[in-house]
Amino acid sequence: MNERLIQQLQFLDEIEKLKLVYRRNRTVDRSRFENSAEHSWNVALMALVLAEHADTRRLDLLKVVKMLLIHDLVEIHAGDTWIFDEAGAATQAEKETRAARELFGLLPADQAAAFEQLWHEFEARRSAEARFAASIDLLQPLANHLLSGSREDEEIKPTAQAVLARKRPIAESSASLWSVAQSLIERSREQGLYLDEAGTP
Amino acid sequence: MNERLIQQLQFLDEIEKLKLVYRRNRTVDRSRFENSAEHSWNVALMALVLAEHADTRRLDLLKVVKMLLIHDLVEIHAGDTWIFDEAGAATQAEKETRAARELFGLLPADQAAAFEQLWHEFEARRSAEARFAASIDLLQPLANHLLSGSREDEEIKPTAQAVLARKRPIAESSASLWSVAQSLIERSREQGLYLDEAGTP
Repeated sequence: MNERLIQQLQFLDEIEKLKLVYRRNRTVDRSRFENSAEHSWNVALMALVLAEHADTRRLDLLKVVKMLLIHDLVEIHAGDTWIFDEAGAATQAEKETRAARELFGLLPADQAAAFEQLWHEFEARRSAEARFAASIDLLQPLANHLLSGSREDEEIKPTAQAVLARKRPIAESSASLWSVAQSLIERSREQGLYLDEAGTP
Repeated sequence: MNERLIQQLQFLDEIEKLKLVYRRNRTVDRSRFENSAEHSWNVALMALVLAEHADTRRLDLLKVVKMLLIHDLVEIHAGDTWIFDEAGAATQAEKETRAARELFGLLPADQAAAFEQLWHEFEARRSAEARFAASIDLLQPLANHLLSGSREDEEIKPTAQAVLARKRPIAESSASLWSVAQSLIERSREQGLYLDEAGTP
């Protein structure tokens, strides 16, 4: 077995750990928390199904899917930060940049550079592909939360307005998906999953 | 929201259930069984990393990844069948064909037809892409099992020879990955995860 293949297999052994990074959202039967590996599958497939709704006509779909398959790998070292945890977010970027360097660095140099560049492009939303991938990554938890959430779940709920503000980047890549997001947020608010503007459930 | 988008969202709500289809393999910390959604993520990313080892030079990688992202969806209706469960396998094909029709049928007609066709192509290993995708799908559980398996796990263990026979289709798409598979099987046998030829652990 050559050195290149050995490096690739070591990387693949390491990324098994993404299955052990748990998120705030639940599975639809509410038996357990969703993990970042199945979330990554979910968004990659969602992108395939919804690609026609991107405002950009000529989207490189393979690039979108690649971004979504790798976008959370840094959490293996840096952990998952809840979208409404502002204190966590402040230190998260630096931790994730270091994690990307270490994790992708397990791969042969050319692949390491390509994956790391792709991850940075996604994080900075620097291309139409990155913006669409980011939109899907923002949309999936909304759909999942409406299916699996309960008004009793969280001690500290965000307001619907705060959720709208966080999800607004969806509008940058797709007018239709932004409508979907708004509708999901409204229906979730009606079910008591978010607080209303006055801060009451 | 137009009818097309509504159908797509209904399909996406339905496929959340793949996260609840559990497999025989475990996560690396052995805390729980792996599910088919995270397995699908794993093989899709594995295909990206290992694509250069396909014997076919001009592989349509997006097609490979699409196949791997959807390959297990039929299990939502038909359940997962262990690769060594021969009785289960006999009725499984028919159940899965019906499941594919129903599940992909939630999508708009053009997408339903495209996904269903892609799934049949994968199942029948009818193209270079399908054969490579199938190889990755056969390889991932071997790598995972060596990391997460224990000689105490299964009441009925297959022999290393039976595993080799089941995994041999890997050789049809990649000589290098077939070497990897053989090495994983040998190391797993040494650790007592499979029986040896005489049927003893």
